[in-house]
Amino acid sequence: MAVSEAPLLAAAARRPAPVTPIWFMRQAGRYMPEYRALRERHTLLELCAQPELITEVTLQPVRALGVDAAILFADILLPLVPMGLDLGFVAGEGPAIANPVRTAHDIASLRAVDPEADLGAVLSGIRILSGELPPHVPLIGFVGGPFTVGTYAVEGGPARQALEAKRMMHAAPELWHALMQKLTVALGDFLVAQVRAGARVVQLFDSWAGLLDAHDYRTHALPYSRAVLERVADLGVPRIHFGVGASHLLPAMRETGAEVLGLDWRTSLDEGWASVGPDRAVQGNLDPAALFAPLPELRRRVDRILERAAGRDGHIFNLGHGILPGTPVDHVRAVVDYVHERTAG
Amino acid sequence: MAVSEAPLLAAAARRPAPVTPIWFMRQAGRYMPEYRALRERHTLLELCAQPELITEVTLQPVRALGVDAAILFADILLPLVPMGLDLGFVAGEGPAIANPVRTAHDIASLRAVDPEADLGAVLSGIRILSGELPPHVPLIGFVGGPFTVGTYAVEGGPARQALEAKRMMHAAPELWHALMQKLTVALGDFLVAQVRAGARVVQLFDSWAGLLDAHDYRTHALPYSRAVLERVADLGVPRIHFGVGASHLLPAMRETGAEVLGLDWRTSLDEGWASVGPDRAVQGNLDPAALFAPLPELRRRVDRILERAAGRDGHIFNLGHGILPGTPVDHVRAVVDYVHERTAG
Repeated sequence: MAVSEAPLLAAAARRPAPVTPIWFMRQAGRYMPEYRALRERHTLLELCAQPELITEVTLQPVRALGVDAAILFADILLPLVPMGLDLGFVAGEGPAIANPVRTAHDIASLRAVDPEADLGAVLSGIRILSGELPPHVPLIGFVGGPFTVGTYAVEGGPARQALEAKRMMHAAPELWHALMQKLTVALGDFLVAQVRAGARVVQLFDSWAGLLDAHDYRTHALPYSRAVLERVADLGVPRIHFGVGASHLLPAMRETGAEVLGLDWRTSLDEGWASVGPDRAVQGNLDPAALFAPLPELRRRVDRILERAAGRDGHIFNLGHGILPGTPVDHVRAVVDYVHERTAG
Repeated sequence: MAVSEAPLLAAAARRPAPVTPIWFMRQAGRYMPEYRALRERHTLLELCAQPELITEVTLQPVRALGVDAAILFADILLPLVPMGLDLGFVAGEGPAIANPVRTAHDIASLRAVDPEADLGAVLSGIRILSGELPPHVPLIGFVGGPFTVGTYAVEGGPARQALEAKRMMHAAPELWHALMQKLTVALGDFLVAQVRAGARVVQLFDSWAGLLDAHDYRTHALPYSRAVLERVADLGVPRIHFGVGASHLLPAMRETGAEVLGLDWRTSLDEGWASVGPDRAVQGNLDPAALFAPLPELRRRVDRILERAAGRDGHIFNLGHGILPGTPVDHVRAVVDYVHERTAG
């Protein structure tokens, strides 16, 4: 199969694809026994630090599921480590940063990132993967959105309300802007390096953007996301942009220039696509919890999404958020097969 | 001032009000020093079990802030206690239920609630408050939506994904329906009793409805919320309905019959009102995090919301979610004064 025929690349360009391509956010992870076996011997940060392990974990779901894309195994917060933040992962609670960014001094102290020197393991992993993946299964590189990564940096960990970050935006907007600028450079450089190493698609995960209203999003997040995506605009890779609970932001998120907008599961695919506009592709949007449903019910839910895509070119099937721990692998595999069966031209 | 002139009641009926009425979700709570003083001596469940304490806590923000409504101090999960669930509150983590509802047997074991016998302290508190509140400050009674209360009951505590509840809906819809029916009766009876005791407005908090897409909301949540609100439809009290992150559900939520729809802060007020329709009032929708902003910035944000209401009758000013711990009381008070100043006819 020629490289240009990869279903994911066709759909991202809104050209006819042989099947509706499908992959899953967080398709490599704890729900897979192969992954859990590796995690018994390595921490998450160790997995992200060794090219062979990155490669292995990235390939696990490609082998097990038959998906149409591989997504680089990494974490959106990795670039914060060479910037000087003390990042760890607390079991069951997620990331924790021991020295969160709160002051002008903290921001000034953030170091510049040299992707090759500082995040070389990831780039080496991409190079290995580029040689191993079949041509019809492109590798997706990614970074977090500056807003989301910056919010983690300010909060020091998951914070559903993003209160400290919003406090900085409102009370000291010049500090927020300085932080965003540093992150925009670091994340943009890293994304460019990923593409040069072999990533054929990129995704910007602005996971927390949905915490903002449209006014704050346009002021404090959108310009930086757009700047990161513009860095790879001329490199020939489709750009996917995704946020959770962000249906109210879709018209603004398209202004990042992304060719593909990810829809979370709450938005119906047709309404989401209407918000995004017909000149963009969409990705989504099965509720991750639906993967726990009995197979007949699960297939009905897949059907509803495919019906809403109405056979238009430009639909990449995915979840509306990442795969949940405990998800039955056979259900994930069944969805891949079913989407392929239902859409094979 | 005549009872019918209470600004909140006028706005809820979309009649001209002397000022845009304002109150705050979670206006009684930890951000207030008076409340923290009481909490040093009493647990949350103790506060909810003594009519005098309920009255005191409910009145604290009315005295301190000059708001246009009092909201009963209680918790949406209280009715689960007489139903047989072992409810506690874990500091910093929220409610925890030691015996969550998972099986047909668990659901069958849920006891019926007699509001007067089982939740009499709350009703006594309402009776006392009815005598103490000035006529222009109506008391708002409330219950949780059956979906939200049921999801807590199934999950056993806060669960951002509502995975166990969705699993029951998808794999055993008859169980979910049975649970919803029991809760609909209990919550409906309790809401009727609150109105008979003196609540002059009611709010249904279906806080977690936003976790559902429109299809699941219509199938597994809406019918029960509507049934609860219908119980008080003929009692002459305006009915407010609110969910977080639920902008995609607003057209469905209006089908509950509620006269007022609450908007969360992510939706712009004008767009939210358009989704809800011109024949309903709206409540909202300042970002709770904005209360931490410097006063000039905070006032600009209030201005933007008032501009979006565009002087139409039927706007009740509120937050788009509850007041956050640590919120500066003087900022809350400043918003009350500013909204009154800006809108005094």
